[in-house]
Amino acid sequence: MQIDKLTLKDVATTNRQYLETIFALGDGHMGVRDSVPFTGNQQATLPVMLINGYYATNPITYGESAYGYAKNHQTIISLTSPRYLDFATEKTSSEIPGDWDMTVDDAVLDFDTGVLTEKFQIVTSDHHHFELVVKSMIALDNSHQLFLNYELTSLDYTGTLRFTRPIIHDVTATTADADDPRVAQRQSGLTNQFIPADRQQQIEWQTLVASTHQQITQRDWLTSFPTGFEVYGDHAGFHGSGTIEVQTTLSWSFTRQISEINQALPDKIMGWTNDIVVRNRQILTDFWQQSQVQISDKKLQTGIQYNLFQLFQSAGRNGLTNIAAKGITGPGYEGHYFWDTEMYMLPFFIYTQPQIAKQLLHYRFSILPQARERARSLGVTRGALYAWRTINGEEASAYFPAGTAQYHINADIAHTVKLYFDVTNDQNFLREQGAAVVLETARFWLQFGSWQQRDGRSQFCLYKVTGPDEYTALVDNNYYTNRMVKENMAFAAWLLEKHYIDGDADEQVQFTKASTNMYLPYDQEQQVTAQDDHSPKMPVWPFATTAATQYPLLLHYHPLMIYRHRVNKQADTLLAEMLFPEDQSLEQLRRDYAYYEPITTHDSSLSRSIFSILASRLDDRDKAFSYYMDTSLMDLVDLQGNAKDGLHEANLGGSWLGLTYGFAGMYVADGKLHITNHLPTQIAHLSYRLRFRSRVLEVQLYQDKTQVKLVTGLPLAVVVAGKEYDVLQGVRSE
Amino acid sequence: MQIDKLTLKDVATTNRQYLETIFALGDGHMGVRDSVPFTGNQQATLPVMLINGYYATNPITYGESAYGYAKNHQTIISLTSPRYLDFATEKTSSEIPGDWDMTVDDAVLDFDTGVLTEKFQIVTSDHHHFELVVKSMIALDNSHQLFLNYELTSLDYTGTLRFTRPIIHDVTATTADADDPRVAQRQSGLTNQFIPADRQQQIEWQTLVASTHQQITQRDWLTSFPTGFEVYGDHAGFHGSGTIEVQTTLSWSFTRQISEINQALPDKIMGWTNDIVVRNRQILTDFWQQSQVQISDKKLQTGIQYNLFQLFQSAGRNGLTNIAAKGITGPGYEGHYFWDTEMYMLPFFIYTQPQIAKQLLHYRFSILPQARERARSLGVTRGALYAWRTINGEEASAYFPAGTAQYHINADIAHTVKLYFDVTNDQNFLREQGAAVVLETARFWLQFGSWQQRDGRSQFCLYKVTGPDEYTALVDNNYYTNRMVKENMAFAAWLLEKHYIDGDADEQVQFTKASTNMYLPYDQEQQVTAQDDHSPKMPVWPFATTAATQYPLLLHYHPLMIYRHRVNKQADTLLAEMLFPEDQSLEQLRRDYAYYEPITTHDSSLSRSIFSILASRLDDRDKAFSYYMDTSLMDLVDLQGNAKDGLHEANLGGSWLGLTYGFAGMYVADGKLHITNHLPTQIAHLSYRLRFRSRVLEVQLYQDKTQVKLVTGLPLAVVVAGKEYDVLQGVRSE
Repeated sequence: MQIDKLTLKDVATTNRQYLETIFALGDGHMGVRDSVPFTGNQQATLPVMLINGYYATNPITYGESAYGYAKNHQTIISLTSPRYLDFATEKTSSEIPGDWDMTVDDAVLDFDTGVLTEKFQIVTSDHHHFELVVKSMIALDNSHQLFLNYELTSLDYTGTLRFTRPIIHDVTATTADADDPRVAQRQSGLTNQFIPADRQQQIEWQTLVASTHQQITQRDWLTSFPTGFEVYGDHAGFHGSGTIEVQTTLSWSFTRQISEINQALPDKIMGWTNDIVVRNRQILTDFWQQSQVQISDKKLQTGIQYNLFQLFQSAGRNGLTNIAAKGITGPGYEGHYFWDTEMYMLPFFIYTQPQIAKQLLHYRFSILPQARERARSLGVTRGALYAWRTINGEEASAYFPAGTAQYHINADIAHTVKLYFDVTNDQNFLREQGAAVVLETARFWLQFGSWQQRDGRSQFCLYKVTGPDEYTALVDNNYYTNRMVKENMAFAAWLLEKHYIDGDADEQVQFTKASTNMYLPYDQEQQVTAQDDHSPKMPVWPFATTAATQYPLLLHYHPLMIYRHRVNKQADTLLAEMLFPEDQSLEQLRRDYAYYEPITTHDSSLSRSIFSILASRLDDRDKAFSYYMDTSLMDLVDLQGNAKDGLHEANLGGSWLGLTYGFAGMYVADGKLHITNHLPTQIAHLSYRLRFRSRVLEVQLYQDKTQVKLVTGLPLAVVVAGKEYDVLQGVRSE
Repeated sequence: MQIDKLTLKDVATTNRQYLETIFALGDGHMGVRDSVPFTGNQQATLPVMLINGYYATNPITYGESAYGYAKNHQTIISLTSPRYLDFATEKTSSEIPGDWDMTVDDAVLDFDTGVLTEKFQIVTSDHHHFELVVKSMIALDNSHQLFLNYELTSLDYTGTLRFTRPIIHDVTATTADADDPRVAQRQSGLTNQFIPADRQQQIEWQTLVASTHQQITQRDWLTSFPTGFEVYGDHAGFHGSGTIEVQTTLSWSFTRQISEINQALPDKIMGWTNDIVVRNRQILTDFWQQSQVQISDKKLQTGIQYNLFQLFQSAGRNGLTNIAAKGITGPGYEGHYFWDTEMYMLPFFIYTQPQIAKQLLHYRFSILPQARERARSLGVTRGALYAWRTINGEEASAYFPAGTAQYHINADIAHTVKLYFDVTNDQNFLREQGAAVVLETARFWLQFGSWQQRDGRSQFCLYKVTGPDEYTALVDNNYYTNRMVKENMAFAAWLLEKHYIDGDADEQVQFTKASTNMYLPYDQEQQVTAQDDHSPKMPVWPFATTAATQYPLLLHYHPLMIYRHRVNKQADTLLAEMLFPEDQSLEQLRRDYAYYEPITTHDSSLSRSIFSILASRLDDRDKAFSYYMDTSLMDLVDLQGNAKDGLHEANLGGSWLGLTYGFAGMYVADGKLHITNHLPTQIAHLSYRLRFRSRVLEVQLYQDKTQVKLVTGLPLAVVVAGKEYDVLQGVRSE
């Protein structure tokens, strides 16, 4: 079954800020939150429009500073709503708080066209009734145009109605919860310059960020309005008035176009026409063709389609931007890019939209100079270290124990370059961009690490690092990090061997030696893979005496309390085991899972998807299903309680991983695709499409059979449940 | 030999800011830096008067905040100079920069009276010459009065001379090096209220700190001035003018009196008379009687006497203040009290000035409520945790890995309560104050620590702590911390057993059990006492490629670079071994010393004294002497290069420890004083006095003999070189 829309019935609450996130629209460049048209950003505490990579900097103030600390905050700019429209009857105005009481009747987000249709019921303070239907759509053809159509129906009002579309210049400061590092942000003033409009009913202006010299140009066009209204535009918007009669429907349409950063606005601008809808439908049909997922559970089907649709809306496509932790759906985490992109979101794009994946990886290549610089600040004289959180490539993490110390981002990026290459076989990208990223990150490790005696032989060790689990910091030999670095250096050696890039004398040998002898901690006593050198010995968090209201722990306990206990925010060692299925036996994985699951709080949205995937691998299908439900529906049920700050983009990607890496047991090894059917009993059927080395494949899972179908391309060998099959034009089952 | 003064020839440079520190005067309450009288604080970047415990708060801004972080900075107030005086000839003025060129000719600080006498040579911009002699003295009788006398001699000027003594109201912001955590500070505005002066030539005003509601009252009195001058006072100071003739000497005297914080100004105020000098001499004679050190090396004799004199000047005596890291000689470290007081300075007071020691410990007792509160913020539901750095008892450390995580301060304070009791046998203090401090700190440990299997049995472990060495952070089982906590809990059990205080059921048993089974890390492979669970395995700092200019490391490397290497800022494990001589054999100590010495940078001023003491114990007398020279003369030669920010108070105390704990091998065990002669060959003779259980003893060390002399009190047994002797009214030698 395919689901073609999300409606108000599918979501957790009608809390407005929550809805603003859930029904946000975007094209990877502009993200428009679903604010109530009347409020503009006057009443909202969250911004209503974000531009990917459009940010301000201001100096970080430290309570106590030290050498090498990140110097500047980078904060995505919160722009005012392009949805803003005011109405006024003779005695009331939607601009006056309380005058126009609004309830949302319905909202429908169409996955096939990107059109959002909403219906609002309005009661004025003098007891008149109106109905407002708003249709919104962002063109997905990279023209960065938002189309808006307002239909206002008077149910019992007769008289003069005025409308105003004000363009607000100022940026409203947003509320920040200072102690919650996930939302804290700062605002910076902007300057606006209005460009004299030489066209009727068009307004144009440029907004400049002083600190970054970034500029965008916006154009707002009143494309249609009802007869009987006299309309005039000036630099602050459009105004008009006319007479409305009972049950008359009046219609206004606007187009808002936004330039790329520091680029001119293309001249082409359109009003809402059917052509645009057709074009969007075409783009989304292509998207769904390659990303199609069908699952025999309506809720999950809605969840996965919503998630993939939102991922598609969030991904930067210009090679200079990435996907922020909240995409462009909210200002949480200041619009920063983290490792989330590579480890949680990129696999979906690599397997289904490689052209977007390539652009996202190009972003990493483009910030290599900043990463080299950062390695120098850290005292490492060779190679590059990617910033833990950044927009412009410079480190913006103001708390290094859970920021810069998460060095693993280096290996995460290299891993994803490898995955992209393994899946696409894109030789050009690897040669021209990917190899440099892998080599420079590997060089960092070689100097960062050191040789130490472990278990009677010299092994390569990494000290004072923080792994993915942020409830544990500054440890020695974090298993995840070491395992990822092992791959990073092995891949660098391979690239040198195969002459994708030139290295220095002896480098290939050194990479191979360090990779081969990477130390991977293991706790002999408990027979589990150890998270790091210390954690097996630490006391377990006092779960029994921790009230449910005390989660997430980070908001209720001092980091020192958290760090000195064995407690995980998210999958750490298990994430490494998920990524490298051939590293350990199922028995070992089972022990590790049983060891880590009880100490994991899932306070991070990056956790449950991994637990679902590994439960699948262990054939604990009920558990896999249960974790997957939480993953797939995380924001639609507001599981973390903070969807209002923006979608959990990593989890959107994680929900795709749960299906493909989990239920279908998919991974690549030695250039071959592996599939194993772990479909939970709750799901009768699951199929999904993917691209693999110039083919389009469709994987079909049933309770009793597994099929891999070649949709387009040449035949190839696929390993199903450990057995190799040739996939021809037809169907193979296990 | 006794040295009775410090002169300009004894110090490192004539850099003015350096001299401001070195020749600072104080009485434990007010600290007056030796600023040039003409400059007031107009040109200085460092403040010229500090009041112990007089501070402002302002909120700490974090780059990224989290639960339980310290909320407020506490910053000692930088007050304007009480030494400020302006002179003006008909054409020039000392107030105009460059008009009066000044060189310092001599400065003499008299250790027997506290009088500072300085001579300045002055050339005006129109080529006239003056000589200025300034005498300064702070009364040491707790009246908080500064006496100043200015004698100006014209060498070739004839004409009108004006003088002004302005009282500056505003606090000048000081320069802060934002990346050097040792000096960073912030200023807060003060409000001044002038009190109408009802006495001639007196001005009085109150200064209120808005954030802390602390108020002090100052009174400035022009007590004498030359005939021929017409003098008038108003709220802003004193003014006058007269005619000066060649080689005439004119004299002005002022007294500045300062109240205790939030107290009224006592009515008594005096001009400079011989009575004051006599009274000061009497107080200092008493001081030197008990603190006497004689050493047959003029430099060292000067150094130790200077150090002890400055310690005496810095120590708060009112039970509500302590000794700041820079005393009241400079604003470094914001005037905060650290563990330095207990571990480096208090032994000197305990052994020679127990009445001051008791007041300093009373301060800790007085902030127990804040310490209890702090333990709660850290998630520990019982006991108390002292703030790492504080004035008012609340945590002011804005960087917890090297702040709050230095939990050992709890055990340091308990250790010093024990030392105070062992040396003084002050039953009342222990019962009324000390026992509560020990019990509450022990309770903290009991809940903070946990039982883990180590070496085949259950041992008590402490996770994620930072020891004294700040180049290593957040480790498990820091040896120093664990060893100190072992004593803390054992002492608490003893206090319960002896009914000094009542505990809860079973507490005594639990303290004993945890203390007895405290885990103390040891590296079997290298046969050394391990600093913590991890450090033996870490790579050694790349000393070979670190240029001399790159020290101190903290100013040139990111903390992550420092933390991931085996490198020590200061003695850590060795400090514990210094404190507990009976813990290890000399062979073990020798191995440990050889292991830690090469990796210690001594970037902390708290390091060298400990290395000297242990070299003494190991009978490496040349090394002991060499480290001791650096310790004793640290500020007089400006070894750390930052004496301008204030004296290294801990090292002042450390220099006394070097003599007594080091050269004389002094410690207390089982209630008995132990002495062992380790006198370096460079020193022919060393003697010092101490108080021990109501006696005054004098220890005399020669190259060939050791004598312990009973100066006053009843005979007692002393252990000299391991053999017990009864010390009668005479002399015992080894």
